[in-house]
Amino acid sequence: MDFPPVFWELATDWYQISMLGGYFHHKKVDQIAVFDLFYRQLPNHREFIITAGLEQAIEYLTRLRFDPEAIEFILAHPAFKQYPDPEGFRAYLQAFRFTGTVLAVPEGTPVAPNEPILEVIAPLGQAQLVETYLLCVIGHQSIVASKAARIVQAAQGKVVIDFGTRRAHGREAGLLGARAAYIAGCSGTSNVLAGMLFGIPVVGTQAHSWIQSFPTELDAFRAYVETYPDNNTLLIDTYDIAEGTRHAAQVGKELQQKGHTLGGVRIDSGNLATEIPRVRQILDQAGQKTTKIVVSNDLNEYKISDLAKREPEFLADIFGVGTEMIVARDDPALSVVYKLAEIDGCPCIKLSSGKVTYPGRKQIFRTKDGDVLASGEEDLPGRPLLQPVLVNGTLIAPLPELADIQQYCLEAMKTMPKPLTVTISPNLTNLVEILTAKYAQIKPKGKHK
Amino acid sequence: MDFPPVFWELATDWYQISMLGGYFHHKKVDQIAVFDLFYRQLPNHREFIITAGLEQAIEYLTRLRFDPEAIEFILAHPAFKQYPDPEGFRAYLQAFRFTGTVLAVPEGTPVAPNEPILEVIAPLGQAQLVETYLLCVIGHQSIVASKAARIVQAAQGKVVIDFGTRRAHGREAGLLGARAAYIAGCSGTSNVLAGMLFGIPVVGTQAHSWIQSFPTELDAFRAYVETYPDNNTLLIDTYDIAEGTRHAAQVGKELQQKGHTLGGVRIDSGNLATEIPRVRQILDQAGQKTTKIVVSNDLNEYKISDLAKREPEFLADIFGVGTEMIVARDDPALSVVYKLAEIDGCPCIKLSSGKVTYPGRKQIFRTKDGDVLASGEEDLPGRPLLQPVLVNGTLIAPLPELADIQQYCLEAMKTMPKPLTVTISPNLTNLVEILTAKYAQIKPKGKHK
Repeated sequence: MDFPPVFWELATDWYQISMLGGYFHHKKVDQIAVFDLFYRQLPNHREFIITAGLEQAIEYLTRLRFDPEAIEFILAHPAFKQYPDPEGFRAYLQAFRFTGTVLAVPEGTPVAPNEPILEVIAPLGQAQLVETYLLCVIGHQSIVASKAARIVQAAQGKVVIDFGTRRAHGREAGLLGARAAYIAGCSGTSNVLAGMLFGIPVVGTQAHSWIQSFPTELDAFRAYVETYPDNNTLLIDTYDIAEGTRHAAQVGKELQQKGHTLGGVRIDSGNLATEIPRVRQILDQAGQKTTKIVVSNDLNEYKISDLAKREPEFLADIFGVGTEMIVARDDPALSVVYKLAEIDGCPCIKLSSGKVTYPGRKQIFRTKDGDVLASGEEDLPGRPLLQPVLVNGTLIAPLPELADIQQYCLEAMKTMPKPLTVTISPNLTNLVEILTAKYAQIKPKGKHK
Repeated sequence: MDFPPVFWELATDWYQISMLGGYFHHKKVDQIAVFDLFYRQLPNHREFIITAGLEQAIEYLTRLRFDPEAIEFILAHPAFKQYPDPEGFRAYLQAFRFTGTVLAVPEGTPVAPNEPILEVIAPLGQAQLVETYLLCVIGHQSIVASKAARIVQAAQGKVVIDFGTRRAHGREAGLLGARAAYIAGCSGTSNVLAGMLFGIPVVGTQAHSWIQSFPTELDAFRAYVETYPDNNTLLIDTYDIAEGTRHAAQVGKELQQKGHTLGGVRIDSGNLATEIPRVRQILDQAGQKTTKIVVSNDLNEYKISDLAKREPEFLADIFGVGTEMIVARDDPALSVVYKLAEIDGCPCIKLSSGKVTYPGRKQIFRTKDGDVLASGEEDLPGRPLLQPVLVNGTLIAPLPELADIQQYCLEAMKTMPKPLTVTISPNLTNLVEILTAKYAQIKPKGKHK
């Protein structure tokens, strides 16, 4: 299915382009800069953030080019009317490639505020230009993965499936949200494209419109299993849940006689805490003990936990979670920022209240007692989280498969220090103090835009 | 900039595909169905929703095709292992085109819950398949446009600019969010691609990293205006706002001597209610009366209204709004649904408590006293909101330009009935009663998934 080409190199803030033009004019594009990407504050009700989106960030950096049409659009902007060297800047954009080095915390790692998720070391022009896209792609997937982690935890080992695409912020947010949710432990998605591109198991049930389009519910169930005798979950709440369950059980018996099985039933309304045991009982009594119960209906971690309390046998097998997970409804944006840490070999610092940055290149060491944020040249006990991914613009090793990222993430959440505290190494503290003294009189206050 | 091709025809829930396979197998794909797309409940703090996303919905419907690779992915799914007629279904998918008719409320119209935003009249297989994508693209842009409308209103005629891409749910959400925000009255965006694709004015200022990368703030300001003598907004809060303003004013004077002007200054931190008048005074006293004041820093409609109260002269000229608008932070998802209203000529109804649907084809008549939701064949006083856009798969007229949609939207908000009440016409009420009596014993309860 074809769409017109989109110039994603322009999916950035205009000031990245105008600053790039300025750096080029003032011969600063090639000063080596170090930028950190991190988040400032935990979203509501979160104890950590699961990093996600690195694969898409790296794909962007390695493919970044300016198409001729994009360049002409830039140079036609009113700001470039008096630009001193349009031909030089055009040539710079034509030759533009990302040639920098990127260190990253592996996807699926729980991280705390102020811990660098990415460290970008690149010529200033390149490092600055990529800010917006990197923030957007990492911020989005990390916020969804972090919400999904909570939902998966609430499900206590039961299966959680992403059903969110229809309520996502567009088709791409649905696709990449499915990816992020899978990283944090979801078992599958309803998003077919996420299955094709990322290998996530693709699952689904039926809509009420299927049931409504047949004369009776039993007709609708029979027609469905005739088409899909070994891959079927029947939606039992279109008319009456108990009656729907009996119809499903009857179809299950008919399937058994032909050597097939009724895979599952889905409940999408009603009081789940009372409906689930009733449905289980009807199915069991009709000999449909292997039939799974899928539940949905605006679920989130609170509703699932509540269900576990109110329905202590916790008989549902699969939770289909949509809106609440795909938009991280209770706090849908992460305070991701991208800050200059070093320029031309000189470490930078900001001192604004509540907006501290840490200077220079850094490393995070994870120990069982907590993380230590250190200067880049330090070698401390613990696992160093920042690992090189791109070196001089080139991927140094294939990125991990998504299923491996999920496994790593689940393990990392199990073994992470709890709570996830961060202490600053003596060396880094010392550097902060030296720079604080140096900058004490000019007190930087702002933040990026 | 190239990315691998993406099979957006698969950006849908798996159950749309499995139901399509079922409808094909049971020879129901060509029964004519009518589906309504509407939202059930107002998001928190909203009095109406501004519709947006129609252009992207229509683009999808008119381009929808199944690539051979996408078809093979579908047929390789476990559900299709025992599928009775894979060759027939493959041929159906190969020939798939959307040949239906779509009526839509024009983009930029304020609508109430339960009012159809789209009415899709198409062969059942087609009408069902497109559900997920349509919900996602209309829901996303409508939620952003509706948030933007509130922010623009709070700004009382001052300029509002979208600065949100970095906090959007991915690059596409940033792009289309910029489009939605513009529809509801924003004057521009920082998103360069939104400028290129949609003609939205593209604006920007500077990052603190620009200031930090020069030895002094004054050096940084002078360098910037040397590059952009007639298109410049200087960020004055990196070190000290008053001092930054004096530096900017000095650069403004230097520009004046060369026949140029200082366009603006931006404040991105601090107590805006006290900083803005102080900055205005310093600029005015230095003869920089035309220099605009741009403010940003996690703004939303509440903070802007509060600023208008606490700083009664309301001296800021331009509000740069990011996170809060692009993710509609206080309620980031719209309860959009897509419901069967008629199948094979028979109107359908659902009776679940709180989940009522209205049967058959419909029309909305807008009068100054409120809306009337009527049956499709009725002709009542007022402006009919649902207008044909696609007829038998073909666009009947070019879609409006984005600037015209914005103008229409601003006018529609001014002239809309307040509050936006909806009454049901006697004919439609009558039809509901007839169907209620008919279905009374089976009481449908569920909703789609």
